[in-house]
Amino acid sequence: MNKVRVFAPATVANMGCGFDIMGMTLDGVGDVLSVEVVEGDGLEIDNRSEVELPDDIEKNVITPAVRALMEAYGEKRLVKVVVEKKISPGSGIGSSAASSAAAVYALNVALGRPFSDERLVEFAMEGEKLISGGTPHADNVGPSLLGGVVLLRGYDPLDIVRLPVPDNFCCSVAHPAIMVSTRMAREVLPKDIPLRTAVKQWGNVAGLVAGLALKDVYLVGRAMQDVVVEPYRKQFIPGFDALREKVMAAGALAFNISGAGPSVFALSADMDVAARVGEIMREHFAEVGSDVYVCKVSNKGARVLNE
Amino acid sequence: MNKVRVFAPATVANMGCGFDIMGMTLDGVGDVLSVEVVEGDGLEIDNRSEVELPDDIEKNVITPAVRALMEAYGEKRLVKVVVEKKISPGSGIGSSAASSAAAVYALNVALGRPFSDERLVEFAMEGEKLISGGTPHADNVGPSLLGGVVLLRGYDPLDIVRLPVPDNFCCSVAHPAIMVSTRMAREVLPKDIPLRTAVKQWGNVAGLVAGLALKDVYLVGRAMQDVVVEPYRKQFIPGFDALREKVMAAGALAFNISGAGPSVFALSADMDVAARVGEIMREHFAEVGSDVYVCKVSNKGARVLNE
Repeated sequence: MNKVRVFAPATVANMGCGFDIMGMTLDGVGDVLSVEVVEGDGLEIDNRSEVELPDDIEKNVITPAVRALMEAYGEKRLVKVVVEKKISPGSGIGSSAASSAAAVYALNVALGRPFSDERLVEFAMEGEKLISGGTPHADNVGPSLLGGVVLLRGYDPLDIVRLPVPDNFCCSVAHPAIMVSTRMAREVLPKDIPLRTAVKQWGNVAGLVAGLALKDVYLVGRAMQDVVVEPYRKQFIPGFDALREKVMAAGALAFNISGAGPSVFALSADMDVAARVGEIMREHFAEVGSDVYVCKVSNKGARVLNE
Repeated sequence: MNKVRVFAPATVANMGCGFDIMGMTLDGVGDVLSVEVVEGDGLEIDNRSEVELPDDIEKNVITPAVRALMEAYGEKRLVKVVVEKKISPGSGIGSSAASSAAAVYALNVALGRPFSDERLVEFAMEGEKLISGGTPHADNVGPSLLGGVVLLRGYDPLDIVRLPVPDNFCCSVAHPAIMVSTRMAREVLPKDIPLRTAVKQWGNVAGLVAGLALKDVYLVGRAMQDVVVEPYRKQFIPGFDALREKVMAAGALAFNISGAGPSVFALSADMDVAARVGEIMREHFAEVGSDVYVCKVSNKGARVLNE
């Protein structure tokens, strides 16, 4: 088999307090992409999605990810990628990450699985590097490839920790039709933060990881508080504080920015609450318009749709 | 029964990366103290240890802890405390915390256990407030009372998370005969830290908690790195970097300052390594002299020795 069609899920990076070090996998929302490997050398990307992508493949996140894998593979091939993109770029639910994750996952299968899934994370990170201005991140590509919650303990060397999520973690995500580039979202952050604030944040990070390990969705909810990044980024999201109030009043356990935004997400302990929260989000963003997803948090990462 | 003799263990706060939010319990090292409750009103503290303690009970950490408990209890009693202190004050292994933990634990038993162990943490924190210049901390009193690893997810309200430790967590602790007051150790810290450094720290915090949950002592070892506080506090500890090198070369998984110092601790996966590391510590501090403890990390907190 040398043509492979795969699905790579959307992801929520940061999870409130875990800025740049963790992300979780959504169920059923993501990107689809095919890879074919033939004799020759090079890369072709054919965009068959309704989403606009750069014509110049040097500007596509797939390119550095595929090149990194092929370089490690060591033999020359012509790689043909067909993109059927479902998530809009700049969504804040790991749109670019799902593309690079899908590309390296499909390519690895097409080549006979020479690399481990963890190794694929390193290749996919090259795509993230392209759009984040040089800094490699794995808080979206990690969960998109591996599923569940993925922690990046450290980047030098890359230390990936996988944490399964319990069944009852439900997520409502809204992607309002506003453009916030990852670069802009990064530039608004301060270079220094008060030590007291940092201590609060890592107390929450500890609580969040403990809550996952203890399968305590309420502890996770209490810990999903971002006192470092949210104060700077919420300005990009219309009526952020008011929306939090409505969402929490409806029974959500936590409400935060997803990744760099402008998407927001809420955690709930059951699907009825998650659905109600999704409706509240849709109404809140009625003026600008939004895509709303209501789904479980999933332990399944990238996977083959047909081989 | 109204006279109770208890043991409260020594503890290692911060555990490397978890400044102010976590601590772990040592096995077999700690303070002993008796409490007797009789008709009347007030508090008497009788120091029968070889360690010097302030004559003025207003300067003893036991006093605010006992008063907080008695105020919540709501009835007047004369509380007589006999201290048989084993750990020197200013040791960096929770000396004051073991005293206040022991006092409230014994008093609670003497009164017929009106309060939960978690509630006792709040009373014992009043003792910590006295010596830390007003800031309440539970990263020593928490584990001293509850055992295992205790996380403080947040302080407002107090959110205590208990994590059991696996059997094979071995600890070598050295308390060099140097005075470093908690206040001095706090004053040397910067008010602000780079966001990049904070992200590294909470990546490690996440890894540490995950490692405990997954019972992975090697992950815990990798994650026990303090990039925030250690650079400022290691100046108080002679030859800190050189000692780390020797200890790691001997097979330890991590080496850090314990609490505010000057004690240092190393984590190992077996007792032979821990013993060897203990010897290296003793030699290193030969000139100033040191107390060295080699023990397991324990799931047992404060406990009654006789009832």
